[in-house]
Amino acid sequence: MTLPDPGTATLPDFHIRPDPDDARLSQPVSGLDQDGNPVEVRVVSERALTLFLNAQEIVTMMTIGDRPDLLAVGYLLNQNMLRPDDEITGIDYDEDLEVVVVRTARATDYEEKMKKKVRTSGCAQGTVFGDVMERFDDISLAPDARLRTSWLYALTKKINTQPSLYLAAGAIHGCVLCQEDRAVAYMEDVGRHNAVDKIAGWMWLNGIPAEDKIFYTTGRLTSEMVIKTAMMGIPILVSRSGFTAWGVELARRVGLTLVGRARGQRFVVLSGAERIDYDMPASAAEREDARHRRKGARREGDAA
Amino acid sequence: MTLPDPGTATLPDFHIRPDPDDARLSQPVSGLDQDGNPVEVRVVSERALTLFLNAQEIVTMMTIGDRPDLLAVGYLLNQNMLRPDDEITGIDYDEDLEVVVVRTARATDYEEKMKKKVRTSGCAQGTVFGDVMERFDDISLAPDARLRTSWLYALTKKINTQPSLYLAAGAIHGCVLCQEDRAVAYMEDVGRHNAVDKIAGWMWLNGIPAEDKIFYTTGRLTSEMVIKTAMMGIPILVSRSGFTAWGVELARRVGLTLVGRARGQRFVVLSGAERIDYDMPASAAEREDARHRRKGARREGDAA
Repeated sequence: MTLPDPGTATLPDFHIRPDPDDARLSQPVSGLDQDGNPVEVRVVSERALTLFLNAQEIVTMMTIGDRPDLLAVGYLLNQNMLRPDDEITGIDYDEDLEVVVVRTARATDYEEKMKKKVRTSGCAQGTVFGDVMERFDDISLAPDARLRTSWLYALTKKINTQPSLYLAAGAIHGCVLCQEDRAVAYMEDVGRHNAVDKIAGWMWLNGIPAEDKIFYTTGRLTSEMVIKTAMMGIPILVSRSGFTAWGVELARRVGLTLVGRARGQRFVVLSGAERIDYDMPASAAEREDARHRRKGARREGDAA
Repeated sequence: MTLPDPGTATLPDFHIRPDPDDARLSQPVSGLDQDGNPVEVRVVSERALTLFLNAQEIVTMMTIGDRPDLLAVGYLLNQNMLRPDDEITGIDYDEDLEVVVVRTARATDYEEKMKKKVRTSGCAQGTVFGDVMERFDDISLAPDARLRTSWLYALTKKINTQPSLYLAAGAIHGCVLCQEDRAVAYMEDVGRHNAVDKIAGWMWLNGIPAEDKIFYTTGRLTSEMVIKTAMMGIPILVSRSGFTAWGVELARRVGLTLVGRARGQRFVVLSGAERIDYDMPASAAEREDARHRRKGARREGDAA
């Protein structure tokens, strides 16, 4: 997964994405339907993954397990346990032991830090360390980044119709790193924050710049999603779901463009509206209908 | 919130529920819509709540903050930090300090336990302690508990149409404790597991029996939802959302009836189907339509 010149490359649509046909990621389960008739449904697989940073056990995560390397690095980055200038000397994954070890040139010790937990809102792994918030206030996001409404409408349709584990089995979250109207990196996982972390890991390991990107999530715009997006340096966050108060407050504090309830022709922006170019009237966008609505899509006022 | 004789009382519909008009629980936020016109939307409030068990700081949660007492007790119960036979000598909540302290007659020390974390899937606070799983295998759920399809269809409609923060502001999870066809206790919160914990706390503080109850959640049927429901002693778990593999596996292991994708006339049961009475044909149930569909409801194959 190395790109010729990631810093300047124009990434294609779905440069990286999950493989819905990967038998390891979902499995058929037998049951009964509403009439008592036998039915077989596909459900998303979950497996444990215990993350070590050098010699220290950090956390055990439940994940679909498609990219333990990206998940491990992204988690450490988003927990502020890896610094942007850290050198990773190795990532070892043992599928049988369900263990991934990230090794760094810098000696690390987060024993103290691990004691301080904050259980955040929506689908969170529930840990935000104090110094993450300290770093949050130092973040500056590209003021000249743009979100054209024509891109937004194109992205929403592409993402909703892209083959995915969501369409195959449901009950999974998706996050997409976008550049202009291209959905370049699509990650899914049982835990929404795993999907975010895998994208963060992929960006870091491939030197993908953040300032010209748009981050799309299927989940709510909670404080933790805003914090992670800003920490990743991405100036624009879009969701088809709704907002929470602290999410909006933090987005405004850091100058993040926050677009929610984005489906079909509609969306609401509650922070950073100055980055939006209304180049395509909503009336010219396609309504979200059964032909290309994300299966399982919620409507406005959605919790995810 | 004390009942005459909770052990035998027939609880009415929505005996306890959130107040959508409570100004503390949601707030208006100004933004722009898809045409660049000013719009005001209501968003759910979030506030920090730091939980102490006696002298020990346990966790800081983000919550809508409507019932810190129930959340605190339920969290401790579901984390196996409170035993069913524990005596609570006091619950003190300080709104300014955003702190709740639960005091017990028994001396408690979970310093060691707090070091062992598991980050679980969907909307989880991300901690399942080892001994929770040990206790899980000792759980026996009422084999004679029943779920009539007529109850299920009635409950789904009631819950979807009940005034709620979800309908008012969206981006929030709901859990409902049900008895036969009555939705007796409705809790909402920004974090799904907060809603579960508030119901657990309410049941424990009021001596509400679990073996004749049905638990309804708006979220996915993940491993953690199955564990919490079984730990609470509730034999039947229903969701309008989908399943994860480990959730199904654990439900079968503990003999929990697991009903998912329950909306309108449809549902799928993947565990404990022997508890279901097909007393009402699906064809006789109302289709879920705009008149009574839960606003923001997803369709089959949903992640929440």
